[in-house]
Amino acid sequence: MLPTITAFAASPDRGRGLARDMPVRWAFEEVGQPYDVRLLSFDAIKEAPHRALQPFGQIPTYELGNLALFESGAIVLHIAQNHAGLLPKDADARARAIAWMFAALSTVEPVVVQRESTLFMERDKAWFAERMPLVEALIRIRLRDLSTRLGAADWLDGAFTAGDLLMVQVLRRLSGSELLAEHPNLSTYVARAEARPAFKRAFAAQLAVFTDRLPSK
Amino acid sequence: MLPTITAFAASPDRGRGLARDMPVRWAFEEVGQPYDVRLLSFDAIKEAPHRALQPFGQIPTYELGNLALFESGAIVLHIAQNHAGLLPKDADARARAIAWMFAALSTVEPVVVQRESTLFMERDKAWFAERMPLVEALIRIRLRDLSTRLGAADWLDGAFTAGDLLMVQVLRRLSGSELLAEHPNLSTYVARAEARPAFKRAFAAQLAVFTDRLPSK
Repeated sequence: MLPTITAFAASPDRGRGLARDMPVRWAFEEVGQPYDVRLLSFDAIKEAPHRALQPFGQIPTYELGNLALFESGAIVLHIAQNHAGLLPKDADARARAIAWMFAALSTVEPVVVQRESTLFMERDKAWFAERMPLVEALIRIRLRDLSTRLGAADWLDGAFTAGDLLMVQVLRRLSGSELLAEHPNLSTYVARAEARPAFKRAFAAQLAVFTDRLPSK
Repeated sequence: MLPTITAFAASPDRGRGLARDMPVRWAFEEVGQPYDVRLLSFDAIKEAPHRALQPFGQIPTYELGNLALFESGAIVLHIAQNHAGLLPKDADARARAIAWMFAALSTVEPVVVQRESTLFMERDKAWFAERMPLVEALIRIRLRDLSTRLGAADWLDGAFTAGDLLMVQVLRRLSGSELLAEHPNLSTYVARAEARPAFKRAFAAQLAVFTDRLPSK
């Protein structure tokens, strides 16, 4: 029996790998665990059967046997705790890697997502041009601190961990922006992660959901 | 040797228990683990010695022996994994409780904190009155879904866990607001948590940092 995750049937980002199933697919690939995917429409994720699994009407979920989980961070941690490959064996190093998972989701991601919601909801508002620099200033503070900590290292704390996986996934939301380009070590960090075979397999799998639905020629 | 955490020497919220040391103090109290506190000025948290522990210049940190951690969510999880009292023993229930920790920090907290940063940074802006309802609408969606899931239960999934601890700590940021009052079961949920002896001890400890610094009569 394979774990089953949920993902969008129609990729909202046209297969750029920014939906929340991407980090979970990537984690599965890093640890070598095959998985099944159940695709859901935008309507279905808001309906009662899915909300029983995901109270906030989002993807992904994780199901295996009697266990159902939600929250991509929690699912990545669950995979990392139950398979070798994403967390160090040493207890202290393991705790530090988990701290980076929380830093990615709790300290860096919120300011990055605020920029996206500003672009999405406020682009046509009179205040957009004046407000966007405030939003970006908050991101710059986080990226400056992250860049300083990373320095010339390959990964945040020793070998690649689930902390790097989630941090890179957050930074990928800024790919192509000046904000990321201002820190060459962060751009390289993202590229280094995207070059991992596990990342490439996960990316291809989520992209296939999008391309398979394109009209055939 | 006791674990040592860091906190603000001068409480920015006047002892309301919304600084990030509060959930860590609460977790220690729930599991019955004494701890030491090292107080830091607003200047000190931005300087190199503290940034070696906390790359983003925030509080709290956690130190015990050779281990140093940051991120309040990660510290609470570390305490919960190393002491009985905050996570179920059953592996599946444990994973679900951890999912609620991530839901608190990754799905609910960002929209709540966005309201605070809007109040802080944009109250004097021309757009404030028009934009604030957009910010609050995002909070209302999360609270509606959370209220529906909680229903008439005491806690999110069985007994009180670290997931409830972090969720309540997020909801406390809305105490006194209409947003929380619109959902009586969420208000009661917060009150139920605040009535726990461990919460009261943690709250008193962080308040004492503030009141001890008031000028004596």
